[in-house]
Amino acid sequence: MILFLNGAFLPEEQAMIAASDRGFLLGDGVFETLRVRNGLPFQWAEHLGRLERGAALLRLALARSLDQLRTDTAELIRRNRFRDGALRITLTRGPGPRGYSITGAGPPTLMMALHPAPAPGSTPPSGERLVTSSFRMAAGDPLAAVKTTSKALWIVARAEAEERGADEALLLNTDGCLAEATAANLFWIERGAVVTPPVSAGLLPGITRALVLEMARAFGLSAEERNAPPRALLEAEGVFLTLSTRGIVPVSSLDGRSLGVSPLVSTLQGAYEERLRAKTSG
Amino acid sequence: MILFLNGAFLPEEQAMIAASDRGFLLGDGVFETLRVRNGLPFQWAEHLGRLERGAALLRLALARSLDQLRTDTAELIRRNRFRDGALRITLTRGPGPRGYSITGAGPPTLMMALHPAPAPGSTPPSGERLVTSSFRMAAGDPLAAVKTTSKALWIVARAEAEERGADEALLLNTDGCLAEATAANLFWIERGAVVTPPVSAGLLPGITRALVLEMARAFGLSAEERNAPPRALLEAEGVFLTLSTRGIVPVSSLDGRSLGVSPLVSTLQGAYEERLRAKTSG
Repeated sequence: MILFLNGAFLPEEQAMIAASDRGFLLGDGVFETLRVRNGLPFQWAEHLGRLERGAALLRLALARSLDQLRTDTAELIRRNRFRDGALRITLTRGPGPRGYSITGAGPPTLMMALHPAPAPGSTPPSGERLVTSSFRMAAGDPLAAVKTTSKALWIVARAEAEERGADEALLLNTDGCLAEATAANLFWIERGAVVTPPVSAGLLPGITRALVLEMARAFGLSAEERNAPPRALLEAEGVFLTLSTRGIVPVSSLDGRSLGVSPLVSTLQGAYEERLRAKTSG
Repeated sequence: MILFLNGAFLPEEQAMIAASDRGFLLGDGVFETLRVRNGLPFQWAEHLGRLERGAALLRLALARSLDQLRTDTAELIRRNRFRDGALRITLTRGPGPRGYSITGAGPPTLMMALHPAPAPGSTPPSGERLVTSSFRMAAGDPLAAVKTTSKALWIVARAEAEERGADEALLLNTDGCLAEATAANLFWIERGAVVTPPVSAGLLPGITRALVLEMARAFGLSAEERNAPPRALLEAEGVFLTLSTRGIVPVSSLDGRSLGVSPLVSTLQGAYEERLRAKTSG
């Protein structure tokens, strides 16, 4: 594969980062992962908007204009004859002195890479198995609202979940309320309403999460953001995850207990796939 | 300077990391920063112990034995004719596939670099100016007890503090209790006792923090780990920070209000410097 790195297109084995890059040393950066279908990135404006907000919170310059980035992305996809999968955009502080102060660091490092979609059927068709993590998100954390490259907590929570035979971890926050999964937002169906925890729970405001809330309302469904205890999932009519690379993914169990199956989940999945096709058709 | 990278010694401008290294992509690693005096690292065993615990929590292999690492460190210091400053050891997951799962990632990346001590007088002799951060640590976070490379929160808290004209940020936890500074642990003197928040507040158990607690007890002082609200600092007889690269550093103000000055802080500083000299004298 060809990667984009600081303005150049080069083979991935030649894409090297300085060992003094604060992305490497301190997780000092932001990133976005977009779905690509038919050679076109889906929800570009929404993802780049979040990248910009994250860069602003971290006091990071974006290094290129959004127009230039869009042109670079199209060129990257063209050079790789890429059709379906994921585009990852990574922006870090760049080389810098030791320590947490950002004084004297930069210029930023900007990298874009394409990742083919996993083979169909590589995930269980019946849905993801969740287990409750022993790690907790900080309720109200303003940093959770942007997608930094400081993901050690999510990584160790996922590793713990996989060791316990599950596909994903359910993360609660420090108040004991539902927050998110490591790589996805969390939804459930309750008396016909589509419910998800609020961003103030300390979770990432997912791009697909926002789309699902919008689609649910367009269907005339009630769509609510609400703090809830974990038992809300056990009592729900259905539970699902949302993530940009896979859309809407049903959840089949939590800590080994089977969860409800609501036809609304398939309805929303269908609507999502329709939107994806409409927006990525040459 | 010469760096150590994955078994090789090489000039820092040649020390490059693969763009697929999960340290760069996801802050998926651990690190330690040790003080070096007279060409000798201080508190080696304590720092390497924490590195090992962090690696174990992250399911990361250490790549080299502790004995081998000690030999590599001595060789790195010799090649650089290094006397005084800091040694940073960084261990990341190494190259890996996209996403949070650690399956298929590695081998780990191990880097060591030396950083000269800042010029004397580069910090205000009267002490650090602290401001209360708008960011919060997660109370009880088990991940806080190890030193990961996922430091975006500490970086943005430090940037915010510097923008407000301070030297360091005071971080509270999600319970509103005192936790730590971005690069240091926090202590105060209260009715002659040396007090610091407990690790359960969600803070890093600093190596110098443990040494100060031990030294205080050796002096016959009361040394307590206790949760406390921020006003404890305003009412304290003295406030100080501890960090491996600088030892004991007095705090002069919090949010613009002057803090008490206790002679116990100088006493502990003297004891620390004495211990440092004793352990790093050829």
